[in-house]
Amino acid sequence: MLDTPELPRYKESLARREFARIAAVPDEIEYVRWIRDRSPPRPPVEVGVGDDAAVITSDSGDPLLVTTDAICDGVDFHLAEVGPRLAGRKAMAVCLSDIAAMGGRPTVAVATVTAPVETRLAALQDLYLGMKEVADEFDVQIVGGDSTSWEGALAISVTCLGRGQPVLRSGARIGDAICVTGRVGGSILGRHLDFTPRVREVAELRSKCTIHSMIDISDGLARDLHHILEASAVGAEIDGSAVPISEDAQTLARRTGKSPLDHALADGEDFELLFTLSKEASLTITASPPQEMAITRIGTIVKSGCTIHRNGAPEELPPMGYVHEFR
Amino acid sequence: MLDTPELPRYKESLARREFARIAAVPDEIEYVRWIRDRSPPRPPVEVGVGDDAAVITSDSGDPLLVTTDAICDGVDFHLAEVGPRLAGRKAMAVCLSDIAAMGGRPTVAVATVTAPVETRLAALQDLYLGMKEVADEFDVQIVGGDSTSWEGALAISVTCLGRGQPVLRSGARIGDAICVTGRVGGSILGRHLDFTPRVREVAELRSKCTIHSMIDISDGLARDLHHILEASAVGAEIDGSAVPISEDAQTLARRTGKSPLDHALADGEDFELLFTLSKEASLTITASPPQEMAITRIGTIVKSGCTIHRNGAPEELPPMGYVHEFR
Repeated sequence: MLDTPELPRYKESLARREFARIAAVPDEIEYVRWIRDRSPPRPPVEVGVGDDAAVITSDSGDPLLVTTDAICDGVDFHLAEVGPRLAGRKAMAVCLSDIAAMGGRPTVAVATVTAPVETRLAALQDLYLGMKEVADEFDVQIVGGDSTSWEGALAISVTCLGRGQPVLRSGARIGDAICVTGRVGGSILGRHLDFTPRVREVAELRSKCTIHSMIDISDGLARDLHHILEASAVGAEIDGSAVPISEDAQTLARRTGKSPLDHALADGEDFELLFTLSKEASLTITASPPQEMAITRIGTIVKSGCTIHRNGAPEELPPMGYVHEFR
Repeated sequence: MLDTPELPRYKESLARREFARIAAVPDEIEYVRWIRDRSPPRPPVEVGVGDDAAVITSDSGDPLLVTTDAICDGVDFHLAEVGPRLAGRKAMAVCLSDIAAMGGRPTVAVATVTAPVETRLAALQDLYLGMKEVADEFDVQIVGGDSTSWEGALAISVTCLGRGQPVLRSGARIGDAICVTGRVGGSILGRHLDFTPRVREVAELRSKCTIHSMIDISDGLARDLHHILEASAVGAEIDGSAVPISEDAQTLARRTGKSPLDHALADGEDFELLFTLSKEASLTITASPPQEMAITRIGTIVKSGCTIHRNGAPEELPPMGYVHEFR
């Protein structure tokens, strides 16, 4: 079990994520599938519900990308512990990460803030400054929003628009190398609040090679990999020894008794990129990665199934990770 | 005072709106001003924070319009009384109304739903269907979203994109006629939950005449008029006897002891359009209104001040209406 006394309070609530059960038919996923079945895209929408962002044909230039994310107190952050500035940073960064995961460049964002009626103006200003700091870093303009006061806790919703020829979850091909940026696991120790969305890296990656499929790691490496596999109707073989495990995952593993690899596979909120490309292209970019960041090949796309080699013997890799469950 | 026993429970919470104090410097407005000062738009953004939607230049065709709104349980609706379908309808309609208020046609929308963990899948589906019914009516595609479960109450955020040559709040000219669609006041009795955003009417209006400035009535006729006056740096003279008062405002006035006109001026959430245009154009469109709906001229844009003639003598018309207050 998690050694909660060593963790600040907000991490207790987040710790639930690490042990989220893998429901047979998790409700959030069932909900999204149910919606997707009722929202077949028609022109000018190329891609609707079900990828990291929607894709809308443009009469001129690159398609328009649209994505939205909500984060809230007690689930994605603990306001009393982290303060409004970090909450604002995370709200914006999570959304920009989705545009990066589509291979796009973010352009503008809007945000809604539903805040406790006792919130002070200074706290709302800090929240905005947090969002703006991250937006400014990527030349994204915050062009509108809505603020509401209520008796409930803080909920923030950000919608981001971007441009780019999209890289979808559905483009993985048998034989593709599976790669990941950076190191994963243990983001709960702080990284989940203040990470760098991989916007610049994606631009450089795409200038060097053709990416076939991509997603950002929000729910967990294993679960997000399954999103690619399902969308592409393929399978994967993962080399457990190749997975780039973060120091945080090592630290957390000493407290939880789980293995660092399990944390790397299931924790989520790394906001690194998981993508597939030809083996030849993977050799090029792992040798000369963008922005001097690590890019690691962790496996291969195969016909079906999802297995991981941990200590020689292959075993099934289920979609471990976080799912919002509704009763 | 409001005769609360005659009102369903959700209307009690909404009733606070009717008596919202007019703070000298209301926090929501101060917050938006503070943000606007820190978000000067730069190309391709033509209009950023501060109008009904942002305006982004397009390389081809009409500019892109972007707007976002959040509504939540206990403030904008009472979930236990109205159910998820109406909540969904309102969330979408409020957002489409903003696109209409810019003179645009809505195209796509995304939504986030932050829902109590005990919410059943069927309720989430109903919520989506409510949003979709309204979206379908205007050929708007819901192209993405995010759902989160938490310990708090239901909050919904919708972002809508649209296209159109924008009509801004800032375009009112001295001598303009001030017009309003439909009838206003007392929306709290039910209309605020299930109204028709004036998307079709706006398209027809614009085909017949040039609108100089426009806003939708969400905060209250008087307050929203002040938004136009401030943005356009002009004043207004309103003829109280001309204001088209709804039957709901009459009904509510019998319970509250306030005048029907006060309700019409301050209640808000009518989601009718308030706009200004030349006197000549106003004669044309009041004689031959779009979609067979009433269009009423209620006053004139003047150099400065904001007065209303109730019983002959002019008196000051303050920005009565609803403002989210933070402590």
